[in-house]
Amino acid sequence: MRDFLPSDKAKRERLLAVIRSSFRAHGFDEIETPSVEDSSRLHAGLGGDNEKLAYAVMKRGLDREALQSAATHDDYLELADLGLRFDLTVPLARFYASHRGELPSVFRSIQIGPAWRAERPQKGRFRQFLQCDIDVIGEPGNLAEVELIVATSATLDALGIAGCTIRVNDRRVLVSMLGVFGFAPADHEAVLITLDKLDKVGPDGVVLELRQRAEQLELDRSGSELGAYLAAVSALNDFLIRPRTLEFLVYGEHAIRRELPDGVDEDAVRDLVALGEAVEAAGIDRRQLSFDPFLVRGMGYYTGTIFEISHPDLGYSVAGGGRYDGMIGRFLGTDVPAVGFSLGFERIVDLIDLPETGAADAVALVYDADVTTPQLAALKAELLATGARARLERRTKNPKALLDQLAASGFTQFAFVSSSSTVLADLELRPIAAQ
Amino acid sequence: MRDFLPSDKAKRERLLAVIRSSFRAHGFDEIETPSVEDSSRLHAGLGGDNEKLAYAVMKRGLDREALQSAATHDDYLELADLGLRFDLTVPLARFYASHRGELPSVFRSIQIGPAWRAERPQKGRFRQFLQCDIDVIGEPGNLAEVELIVATSATLDALGIAGCTIRVNDRRVLVSMLGVFGFAPADHEAVLITLDKLDKVGPDGVVLELRQRAEQLELDRSGSELGAYLAAVSALNDFLIRPRTLEFLVYGEHAIRRELPDGVDEDAVRDLVALGEAVEAAGIDRRQLSFDPFLVRGMGYYTGTIFEISHPDLGYSVAGGGRYDGMIGRFLGTDVPAVGFSLGFERIVDLIDLPETGAADAVALVYDADVTTPQLAALKAELLATGARARLERRTKNPKALLDQLAASGFTQFAFVSSSSTVLADLELRPIAAQ
Repeated sequence: MRDFLPSDKAKRERLLAVIRSSFRAHGFDEIETPSVEDSSRLHAGLGGDNEKLAYAVMKRGLDREALQSAATHDDYLELADLGLRFDLTVPLARFYASHRGELPSVFRSIQIGPAWRAERPQKGRFRQFLQCDIDVIGEPGNLAEVELIVATSATLDALGIAGCTIRVNDRRVLVSMLGVFGFAPADHEAVLITLDKLDKVGPDGVVLELRQRAEQLELDRSGSELGAYLAAVSALNDFLIRPRTLEFLVYGEHAIRRELPDGVDEDAVRDLVALGEAVEAAGIDRRQLSFDPFLVRGMGYYTGTIFEISHPDLGYSVAGGGRYDGMIGRFLGTDVPAVGFSLGFERIVDLIDLPETGAADAVALVYDADVTTPQLAALKAELLATGARARLERRTKNPKALLDQLAASGFTQFAFVSSSSTVLADLELRPIAAQ
Repeated sequence: MRDFLPSDKAKRERLLAVIRSSFRAHGFDEIETPSVEDSSRLHAGLGGDNEKLAYAVMKRGLDREALQSAATHDDYLELADLGLRFDLTVPLARFYASHRGELPSVFRSIQIGPAWRAERPQKGRFRQFLQCDIDVIGEPGNLAEVELIVATSATLDALGIAGCTIRVNDRRVLVSMLGVFGFAPADHEAVLITLDKLDKVGPDGVVLELRQRAEQLELDRSGSELGAYLAAVSALNDFLIRPRTLEFLVYGEHAIRRELPDGVDEDAVRDLVALGEAVEAAGIDRRQLSFDPFLVRGMGYYTGTIFEISHPDLGYSVAGGGRYDGMIGRFLGTDVPAVGFSLGFERIVDLIDLPETGAADAVALVYDADVTTPQLAALKAELLATGARARLERRTKNPKALLDQLAASGFTQFAFVSSSSTVLADLELRPIAAQ
């Protein structure tokens, strides 16, 4: 977990103001939920592997009996009734179920807030990280996907991140494709987890892992079942290594059908084509959109469209999301359609150089030791009344270092203040060169 | 813990933008620390009673042995290596100790973030609440107090909260006053805790509680010690019930000395007078400042000036703070002077009506069911390009309810969209009456 020093914090707040304003312009409304949720909700099976990373918050006033009982059952989670949220999607589903009557029939939410995961410390992974999510709840049609993709793409533009590619797929395409290759439904989840590694390990790596899996399956399956599984792996392999054309990256019905085996879910293909047309109608360049039949997205709760935004210069995605029509029903009892898009704030913050714009003058008053507090207080008030940002700094032996520090804090002008010149009219304001 | 719906969240963000901007103008820099801190830091004795309210976050991967050991020692906190912060002051002290070399020699910090306390649910108390703190670290002189008081007062003005009173006292005044009355040093802490209830229980209540305390002391004290204690209570009583003049509320040397018994710490009185003069020099009306010899402030870590801002219409303070020169040294090893002021965000948010100003047009497009997604996507893009906020809403059977909801979400105009009019030029924009 990290501390943010003034320059980092100021940059993060500038970016958040841009993101907030862009999402709001696109018609989304911001909400906030508490950082902690009931353990039972966090461990309801909706968070996939992230559930295991949830920090557990202990019940209050535990007694010896409770501790002994937990020791007997070897289950320390017995002692926790709360937990820190590991994402913003499970809290959103809980929020919607609690407040449905107070929300529009189609609810477009913004959530900007921290989430926590007990990750092993490693580069680029943080135990507390900021998530920026937008979601559309209650819209069964593809208008939800279109608004999310357009809003996220516009927000990345506003942040100055140009040249991103939006990759789209549909869980129904994936599932029916696995069926075409001959995988049994019971194998789909495991195969998708392996296929999700395609970008990292390549076709050979995927096929190797799937063949190795056959060895673990030997005990539970008949010879013919194992044979069918290995034949499906071979069919997938043939598909993965086939030559592709450059048009693969161009979205459109022809391109989509050419990239898929025969027999894939027709509804899903039609929906992908319609989605491409609608996103294009919103003014997104169709060359930015691509259909990727191997895009999987980790979370098991996706039911339809899935999408990811990546940048050519980066080895990772900067935003991702999809449709999760089943999740709200787990909290509400009746199914409500939902689609979400999450912007990878921690992944993009270091890429962006977004200077402060339209800021007021920022003036540092560098004062001698004999200037009195009332004089300084009056002078600062006079400067503030001009609309400037004002900082008082006692003069040091090394004014150069002081001015460098002030420049790093965003101060643009300074004046020396002595006991003989303590009103604004007597001061000579000079520029501070930026570092 | 609370969920915030769109209108509440928008209001909170508007207030925070005003607070952030005001504090920044006054020369403070925002930082951020993680929500969780090491248990050992949270339980270092610096948080007073709040330490007991800290939520404990469990160690990862606890085993049976650890659970059994905790059961044996009857200490569930053994199982926690982290905790949710109960305030922003302890994390600030830890932050400063970690980053001193990267910060200005006088560091003026802004911290805006949540804290958590396991309070019993009651009106106006929340288990997760937002704190807005400013602190000056490294300034031994009263310029720190002046800048904090002036910045906080200006921020309340900017929020539209007028007519506040700033009450000031000094811990050294309190301590020496208790000495003058004859209380032994060992009794000071307990007497101050009782005196802190003066606003609630009045002089009679304070004196009653102090006399009742004598009964608990009987076992440990000699007869003459008990007699001295009771004589001191009587001296305090005489002081509490003496007549006061209206000038009590006017700050200044004469008023201060008249409100104190002879023999009180002279340095502290001089510092209070100087503080009043300097705050007045910054343009704060001296009638807003008052000296209150009975202002105690709960936290035990205060060492000098303490202050509180209250509003005549409210039965509670809206901001409070003081000097805590000893705390940073607990983390750093060498003492560093520090003063802080905390704005009671959750106490003022409901008092304030701060309308959105300078906002862009917010236009809702209410569309018929037969308008296609590409048409809607293109129309929304056209509207966004004008700089407006845009919301798509499917037409419902009850347009009145829909428009009311849109007004509550801050939308100011709407247009009906049918399949025959799907470009902006063909639409008739109409105002939405605010609710």
